[in-house]
Amino acid sequence: MKKTLTPIDVRYQETDQMGVVYHANYLVWFEIGRTKFIEELGLSYAAMEEKQVVSPVVDAQLSFKKPIRYGEKAYVETWLKSYDGLRTVYGYHILNEANEAVVSGSTEHVIVKKDSFRPLSLRRSFPEWHQAYLSSLGES
Amino acid sequence: MKKTLTPIDVRYQETDQMGVVYHANYLVWFEIGRTKFIEELGLSYAAMEEKQVVSPVVDAQLSFKKPIRYGEKAYVETWLKSYDGLRTVYGYHILNEANEAVVSGSTEHVIVKKDSFRPLSLRRSFPEWHQAYLSSLGES
Amino acid sequence: MKKTLTPIDVRYQETDQMGVVYHANYLVWFEIGRTKFIEELGLSYAAMEEKQVVSPVVDAQLSFKKPIRYGEKAYVETWLKSYDGLRTVYGYHILNEANEAVVSGSTEHVIVKKDSFRPLSLRRSFPEWHQAYLSSLGES
Amino acid sequence: MKKTLTPIDVRYQETDQMGVVYHANYLVWFEIGRTKFIEELGLSYAAMEEKQVVSPVVDAQLSFKKPIRYGEKAYVETWLKSYDGLRTVYGYHILNEANEAVVSGSTEHVIVKKDSFRPLSLRRSFPEWHQAYLSSLGES
Repeated sequence: MKKTLTPIDVRYQETDQMGVVYHANYLVWFEIGRTKFIEELGLSYAAMEEKQVVSPVVDAQLSFKKPIRYGEKAYVETWLKSYDGLRTVYGYHILNEANEAVVSGSTEHVIVKKDSFRPLSLRRSFPEWHQAYLSSLGES
Repeated sequence: MKKTLTPIDVRYQETDQMGVVYHANYLVWFEIGRTKFIEELGLSYAAMEEKQVVSPVVDAQLSFKKPIRYGEKAYVETWLKSYDGLRTVYGYHILNEANEAVVSGSTEHVIVKKDSFRPLSLRRSFPEWHQAYLSSLGES
Repeated sequence: MKKTLTPIDVRYQETDQMGVVYHANYLVWFEIGRTKFIEELGLSYAAMEEKQVVSPVVDAQLSFKKPIRYGEKAYVETWLKSYDGLRTVYGYHILNEANEAVVSGSTEHVIVKKDSFRPLSLRRSFPEWHQAYLSSLGES
Repeated sequence: MKKTLTPIDVRYQETDQMGVVYHANYLVWFEIGRTKFIEELGLSYAAMEEKQVVSPVVDAQLSFKKPIRYGEKAYVETWLKSYDGLRTVYGYHILNEANEAVVSGSTEHVIVKKDSFRPLSLRRSFPEWHQAYLSSLGES
């Protein structure tokens, strides 16, 4: 299975007064990993949006085992967990310097028209994404 | 079961170029609801931290049904889902103007020492929180 | 001169590991104050955007005297500093619990077409905003 | 004069519903540029904080000429504008793909004790920073 590993520079702004990265920021890091994963498939959200289509998150799950601190190196590992032509589920690990998976999670996405948020079929609207997803899952 | 309802003024900064509230911000709104819920129990995170104890999130789950837009009124409804002396689980609904629960979720928390992140028992370290949680669950 | 005072609940997410509100968040608080100021003039950014017009910041200045901490009460005081039919300058004070102006600043705004960012004249495009601004400055 | 150029990957989270990067994020990008500049001098904020000293912003100025959009490449150029042993002023340009300086600004910093926010002299407390700053200004 294809996985991408994206380095993250922890921003001071991302810390909170616990002295660690504020938990909601890991959803942003997931987005960074997902964007990179998609780029490596030869796709881009920016190109999708030019067609007035966006890909909102419909479900997210995060599990936090250890904090990440400012000054630490971090990485987000991203892969495609499942895809059925309509819904795409990404999996993520946040790795610390010691290569421990300190945060794990997943996000589920659909695509919708930007103006109305009416759902579209990825398979029919973006066959090149469909094909790339199947390849990534080893199903084509 | 005790529930609190906290109004949220959508910030322009919270929108993204989809024209809706960026998904990670709902975790911040959950935090706002949780803080208010705790305040209404007569407790405060600020007071807990003066004792060098913090309450990180160890698990989070979010489900997004409809977007919230800038200019809309929104509310976060918060309640205690479960508590076992160690782990506290909060439940949340984000309600839109039409009173629809457009985002749902939960977060699970422990308490730890601020310097070492070593876990503590809420029941033993903060008996007043323990008691308030039991009361909120109708168990005392 | 008309001034509005808007209470701010400090969000845990807004703190950083210095244990204070991260400085960039004051620009967000300025936005909250400005939105409230505009609302009290009977205007709204949301209504402006329905006409495909947005109001970007072209200049910002902030001066930080004392930090604000989580658990403190804070207020943003907002007023119109100047307006010439094209450019609008807002002034801000962030007040702490002791009513000290701990952050001061200003932002300058124009209006532009949302798609092209081509500048428009506020006076000609939104005469009701123009009139409200003049009234607020005591010039009509 | 020494300048550092740091690439920025625009995050979807950083956009707002104008379809451009939200203005407060440029202060975060300035922080990223400043951190890199300091690193290249052989210094680090993380190391400073281990000594219970932090470096808050006391003044910030930003000027916005053109928006940056998601999908664009961006860079932050950072240099030392002035330093007097006590106060450090950094200058910044945000460059877009076309190498235009679309955002310009500066931030002024002091150092303070983390617990009390009492000011310290950088020259006396951190002579290695002092020396590095003088070198960067070509004054030693």
